Amino acid sequence: MRAEVVSVGTELLLGQIVDTNAAFIAVALSELGISLYRRTTVGDNMERLLAALALAFAESDVVITIGGLGPTMDDITRDALALALDDTLVRDDAIAARLETFFRSRGMPVLESNLRQAMVPVHGRAIPNPNGTAPGLLFEKDGKIAIALPGPPNELIPMVRNEVTPYLRARTGDTATIRSVVLRVAGLGESLVEDRVKDLMQDANPTVAPYAKVGEVHLRVTARAASAAEAEALIAERAALVRARLGNAVYGENDCGLEQAVVELLTARGETVATAESCTGGLVAQRITDVPGSSAVFLGGVVAYSNAAKTALAGVPEELLDRVGAVSPEVGRALAEGARAKFRAAYGIGITGVAGPGGGTPEKPVGLVYIAVAHAGGCDLERADYIGSRQVVRQRASQTALNMLRLRAGAEESASSSP
Amino acid sequence: MRAEVVSVGTELLLGQIVDTNAAFIAVALSELGISLYRRTTVGDNMERLLAALALAFAESDVVITIGGLGPTMDDITRDALALALDDTLVRDDAIAARLETFFRSRGMPVLESNLRQAMVPVHGRAIPNPNGTAPGLLFEKDGKIAIALPGPPNELIPMVRNEVTPYLRARTGDTATIRSVVLRVAGLGESLVEDRVKDLMQDANPTVAPYAKVGEVHLRVTARAASAAEAEALIAERAALVRARLGNAVYGENDCGLEQAVVELLTARGETVATAESCTGGLVAQRITDVPGSSAVFLGGVVAYSNAAKTALAGVPEELLDRVGAVSPEVGRALAEGARAKFRAAYGIGITGVAGPGGGTPEKPVGLVYIAVAHAGGCDLERADYIGSRQVVRQRASQTALNMLRLRAGAEESASSSP
Repeated sequence: MRAEVVSVGTELLLGQIVDTNAAFIAVALSELGISLYRRTTVGDNMERLLAALALAFAESDVVITIGGLGPTMDDITRDALALALDDTLVRDDAIAARLETFFRSRGMPVLESNLRQAMVPVHGRAIPNPNGTAPGLLFEKDGKIAIALPGPPNELIPMVRNEVTPYLRARTGDTATIRSVVLRVAGLGESLVEDRVKDLMQDANPTVAPYAKVGEVHLRVTARAASAAEAEALIAERAALVRARLGNAVYGENDCGLEQAVVELLTARGETVATAESCTGGLVAQRITDVPGSSAVFLGGVVAYSNAAKTALAGVPEELLDRVGAVSPEVGRALAEGARAKFRAAYGIGITGVAGPGGGTPEKPVGLVYIAVAHAGGCDLERADYIGSRQVVRQRASQTALNMLRLRAGAEESASSSP
Repeated sequence: MRAEVVSVGTELLLGQIVDTNAAFIAVALSELGISLYRRTTVGDNMERLLAALALAFAESDVVITIGGLGPTMDDITRDALALALDDTLVRDDAIAARLETFFRSRGMPVLESNLRQAMVPVHGRAIPNPNGTAPGLLFEKDGKIAIALPGPPNELIPMVRNEVTPYLRARTGDTATIRSVVLRVAGLGESLVEDRVKDLMQDANPTVAPYAKVGEVHLRVTARAASAAEAEALIAERAALVRARLGNAVYGENDCGLEQAVVELLTARGETVATAESCTGGLVAQRITDVPGSSAVFLGGVVAYSNAAKTALAGVPEELLDRVGAVSPEVGRALAEGARAKFRAAYGIGITGVAGPGGGTPEKPVGLVYIAVAHAGGCDLERADYIGSRQVVRQRASQTALNMLRLRAGAEESASSSP
């Protein structure tokens, strides 16, 4: 089976956005063993889009379009695909009703243009989109398949995972297959990680490739085999070897973020956490509560930006702030212990530092952050000197805090599970 | 003048890298007033690359290729362009000598394959690449121009800036320039926005195009003119017209996020804000504190996930929580007023709702969120019913909260500035 991806949008040709969707779909197709023949990008122009679709259908069995499904006049993909495949669009009453409910509940009028999003092909169906108003579309006509997906990544990605991939897998019959797993590593820099798996990076199958992210490293292990089962066995063996080399620095796989690993660990242990953040401004609390079910482990947090707030909300003694200053190991610890005590949590996270770009001094430069995790047996503290923008400093500090909590709870785990 | 970009590389079709180069070149072309007709990506395969080049030259005057200029066997762009334009490649002795020096100085043998990088077209020349071994290539033949650039962005970007842009500017003759501005709109849905500027969207110059984002809409105004000054004048006039139609729903331009607009407004007014968040878990605090200088306006926040925390940290009466439940307009208001009182801020933001995916009931479904802004004159409240993932619900709620604060502070602004 051969595929082509057609991205639709003048904003792509003007370079206003980078097409990360196309790369995401490319990976999904590769894992299905479907060969991606070509990728094309055209503007919101009917004639050019039709030309691109004609070329695509001439070469490929499956054409996946990205974008142009919205309600506005320059959203032309739906009509273009119907023309290219000589199919007809009809209104789907269930989708129209859902759109009407959606707009009414917001007290907004249901414009005729909105109802264009309820049009589906006679030879095909809508593809559910739980995160937006525009459903995707599937066309199946004359041996050709077209899949139309909306442009926003938060809509497209789950649709590819939950709808498109299972559909295409069923259609391919599944022969030669590529499988891959991402091992997520925290607390070790890229060169250290690479040093420990350097020999594995030489092998052609499975391959092992590192990618540096902010505050963590991803190792992608990819295997190619005649069957999915074989590919998965190859990956399992290689992933186990990588894990043996990197120990507990590997915190999760694939889409499992560090916050999710922490929530899962604490849930399993029946333990709780609270936060008192200064320079990260609520980022740690926000990351933890981004995980569904986090309410079982997250008791609450304070964002103590001013000294007054540090004292009032996290019980940091005024005397201490006067004596050592807000950015100090002592205040980092006091925040963590204050959060733990105030919320009666098993763990308290405290963070204080200089996120920048302003506010730095020779003694306390931009990037200096103290991160503390208070627990029943004491308080762990790290001093970090991050280099980067305000956003990078904050992200790295939140990453370090979550990883310290993970390692602390994990250490308790090993201690309590040993005889 | 019309252009096409052809990206070459199997790794792009496997999704192993995201093609940021193509977006960079797209912006450069747009600023030169050269219309980018299409972008195509093909693998390292001679037949397919030749087909893509034939299509590109059939439509466009300038074809820019990215990648495939290295020394290995799958680097085929150089040969493909010579075939497509019926040109011949000859060795450039100066480049060959430079390559030999390069490899010798590293104690490496000069392989014949490396010397392929010294081949240049008879009808054209090399394009200097100070950051890599492979020079770019320029072909000028039969009225067509081809520009071949290497794939690594640290090589390609300076080559575009220093060589390709000046060359194309000279070739275009006309100084036609494209300029654009993004107007950022909050509090109005995409179709309502479009409804108000529909007639402006018909015009060919300047163009006005809407893009839906999570919780906001971007309107891009793009103008084409003989000079930069003229293009900017066209944009200023059209942007003013759009602003007149949309009123204070336009909160900023270009890269200015809603949190930045809020911080700037409060800074100008010398006012402060504090937050008490339940379902957004610190997201509003985190967004505000992401803005450099936000410490002047942000006093602090609490993340009151549990009922106990709502009472202890934000002063929500226990009796109220028992009577109406945590997700209620009353508790939304109590959180906002509690935050305002606790931190002695000019404004308090309170948010309570069901972010999902679990925790919904028929009366209080997933997506139901109450958002309140307490101020000297009272408390504004909105009820929202968001559709989408936990992340989307939280992002939209934080967006609504920031926009309500902006509109409230802006209203005070107009009130205090009127006589």
